[in-house]
Amino acid sequence: MRIVIVGGVAAGMSAASRARRFDPDAQVTVFERSANISYGACGLPYVIGGDVPGFEHLIARTPGQMREQGVDVHLRHEVTGVDAAARTVTVFDRDAGRTLTEPYDRLLIATGVRAVRPEWARTGLAGVHVLRDLPDGRAIEASVAGAKRACIIGGGYIGLELAEALRSRGLDVTLLEKGPEVAGRMLDPAHQQRVRAELERHGVEVRCGTTVEGLAGKDGHVTGVQTNGGLVPAEVVIVAVGVKPNVELAQAAGVRLGRTGAIAVNARQETHVEGVYAAGDNTESLHRVTEQPVHIPLGLTANRMGRVAGVNMAGGDARFPGVVGTGIFKVFGLGAARTGVTQAEADGLGMEGVSVDVDSTDHAGYYPDAAPIHVRLTGERGSGRLLGAQLLGQPGSVKRVDVVAALLHGQGSVQDLFELDLAYAPPFSSVWDVLLVAADRLGRELCEEG
Amino acid sequence: MRIVIVGGVAAGMSAASRARRFDPDAQVTVFERSANISYGACGLPYVIGGDVPGFEHLIARTPGQMREQGVDVHLRHEVTGVDAAARTVTVFDRDAGRTLTEPYDRLLIATGVRAVRPEWARTGLAGVHVLRDLPDGRAIEASVAGAKRACIIGGGYIGLELAEALRSRGLDVTLLEKGPEVAGRMLDPAHQQRVRAELERHGVEVRCGTTVEGLAGKDGHVTGVQTNGGLVPAEVVIVAVGVKPNVELAQAAGVRLGRTGAIAVNARQETHVEGVYAAGDNTESLHRVTEQPVHIPLGLTANRMGRVAGVNMAGGDARFPGVVGTGIFKVFGLGAARTGVTQAEADGLGMEGVSVDVDSTDHAGYYPDAAPIHVRLTGERGSGRLLGAQLLGQPGSVKRVDVVAALLHGQGSVQDLFELDLAYAPPFSSVWDVLLVAADRLGRELCEEG
Repeated sequence: MRIVIVGGVAAGMSAASRARRFDPDAQVTVFERSANISYGACGLPYVIGGDVPGFEHLIARTPGQMREQGVDVHLRHEVTGVDAAARTVTVFDRDAGRTLTEPYDRLLIATGVRAVRPEWARTGLAGVHVLRDLPDGRAIEASVAGAKRACIIGGGYIGLELAEALRSRGLDVTLLEKGPEVAGRMLDPAHQQRVRAELERHGVEVRCGTTVEGLAGKDGHVTGVQTNGGLVPAEVVIVAVGVKPNVELAQAAGVRLGRTGAIAVNARQETHVEGVYAAGDNTESLHRVTEQPVHIPLGLTANRMGRVAGVNMAGGDARFPGVVGTGIFKVFGLGAARTGVTQAEADGLGMEGVSVDVDSTDHAGYYPDAAPIHVRLTGERGSGRLLGAQLLGQPGSVKRVDVVAALLHGQGSVQDLFELDLAYAPPFSSVWDVLLVAADRLGRELCEEG
Repeated sequence: MRIVIVGGVAAGMSAASRARRFDPDAQVTVFERSANISYGACGLPYVIGGDVPGFEHLIARTPGQMREQGVDVHLRHEVTGVDAAARTVTVFDRDAGRTLTEPYDRLLIATGVRAVRPEWARTGLAGVHVLRDLPDGRAIEASVAGAKRACIIGGGYIGLELAEALRSRGLDVTLLEKGPEVAGRMLDPAHQQRVRAELERHGVEVRCGTTVEGLAGKDGHVTGVQTNGGLVPAEVVIVAVGVKPNVELAQAAGVRLGRTGAIAVNARQETHVEGVYAAGDNTESLHRVTEQPVHIPLGLTANRMGRVAGVNMAGGDARFPGVVGTGIFKVFGLGAARTGVTQAEADGLGMEGVSVDVDSTDHAGYYPDAAPIHVRLTGERGSGRLLGAQLLGQPGSVKRVDVVAALLHGQGSVQDLFELDLAYAPPFSSVWDVLLVAADRLGRELCEEG
């Protein structure tokens, strides 16, 4: 069995490991366009911010370690074409400058996403960055040294995490957001405001409703961002306006994309072209709450898809279970987590969502260091089904969003949540954990309105 | 509707509030033997240890507040008899010194538990305590002032929490445990050892396999504990060898006890005597994993039972959902949590349990302050059903036991746990949260052995 994997980061390397583990006789070859494999891309902002002392700490496995596992890793090898009928790929060896043809029995396309670069960002000015991979991280690191002012464009996960990181490095940071608030795709409006307030409390200047018109530069280096509200001076500009799945290779292979624009697969990570699999940030997954395909590129999902693809390519039968829309991030002292759908998302999907907001403390109020925690819980009118939760609080307290994620996985109800036997002692929670209080209140709301 | 409630702490006060809320016309009377209602008994060790600045902080609601809600609270009123046929209770007013008879339509017995005092503890010596209620807490507080050495007998929740508390107050603390290890009823042996190691690291002397033979005293004050291993000198002795449900009143009413020795009820908290309900620490509950009645007196369970009883007594229809055996505690810098059944409990019940042990970090290893977390996950051979989990780690990290509790509630499988879309970002967890790693490993173990 000849397995070829295109892309050597999360999904690709998980697939390679799993395939070899499942079938030690499988011949597994990985082609990675860049010079790096298997690193924790989610950690990049924390190296830039100085929490993690160097990019090398993000490396999970080296090519040498993978080779010891029997995985044949080729760095700086770009797969440029696929002949799905002949079951071959065309590979450009960037160092040798030559093209080779490699046969496969099973092919995995794990090409990830790229950062969106709007037309105005393509100026060639130094100091303008996106953050997607290790070289991007190193380039930002180099730009930050000696810089005084940074401008971040986009208030999503990456923009928010970088705002904290660059502020921690002592820069003046302005965050520009086109929409009415930051974190617009992650949280409902009231919670977005709390995230912005936390940024502002730590000296980040946040300008929402701001459209970028262009970049200003001098001597080949960026000097500022031209907006509908005037010029924002900055020597470092981060463009964090979203990502796009890398689907060109898949399309060349005749693979079908889904409505989200990412690659459509079944639960075995098979595309509709025989022998061709897809996994990772370039691939859709099924949302278990909405039962719709979604494109939510996140680390755990990519790793899990890779595992499933690896097992299946090696002759096994694994299934990707879908996602429930869980996400988590932190800005300074505030942790924010979500799972399922927000009220806004439920509205957009025509679901009959009802939400309650509960403020409590993360453990017994009388025990030291009790800190505020806010929960918005959303359920479905009529069915009583749980739809989602949003939590804001100290970073240590919001991981309890996982309890709701666990129930959403099995299409649990608001009543199910209320009935849970959650862990209680004063240093850990209130007698009635804030999740239980929210479930109780939402349950009554659903009854009265139902 | 005349509702009489015997006992005014967790279950009793929850029932009173709920009953009034459900039926604002209900006449709700609470008789409490002591001078206090509605306090967080779980917080007592933290006042003694100095984390909480005074016992008054544990009071959730005062009699005055309850009266404002329309609940008629009588302190220092002991219910001494029940005539279930006539539907009356006999009440002794401890201040007035007289006995009255009170009629009821619905009666709730929420009399809680008492601390077990073995024969050898009944000496009348000053300095010897149990910890069950507010007066006990105040008495320990008074004994500790000026004392140098404490001896705690019993290594359960209370003994462990008090070991930390008294050590924090600067006392030399010796903890005696009859069994082979501390935390013997909460955790499996390997985890018990870790708890003991944490106690010892903080200067608590732990002596397991030690039997108490008697107390030594001088001038009416305790001076030490006589054991099979010699005398342990101490001016403060805490007897924390367990609790017993207060069932005498229930028995007087003709109410049936369960096999656990606590009061047997149905899911509506009804005893088998019409019109008589029971709730709280004196009452059994159904364990959803073992499907056996259990007696696990804990705060959340008591409050929840009280709510259910309150609604039902007022004419509603609420059901107690059962428990899954969740518990959590901390000693010094170590948090310990459990849910479901341990391997030892599974063995004892004749269940085909299989356990795996996983060591990881509570968040990404490269992110600052990553601390060890240990998970033991137990599943059932054959069915693949999840049976339980034990977590040890920094206090902030072990509350994720709730994720397993959520799955146990719905009789989830090990595979279900592995498939969860848990929240990941480097400050919060590893890409594969330790629970997912444990589920993966246990899943393979169950397959190979199945």
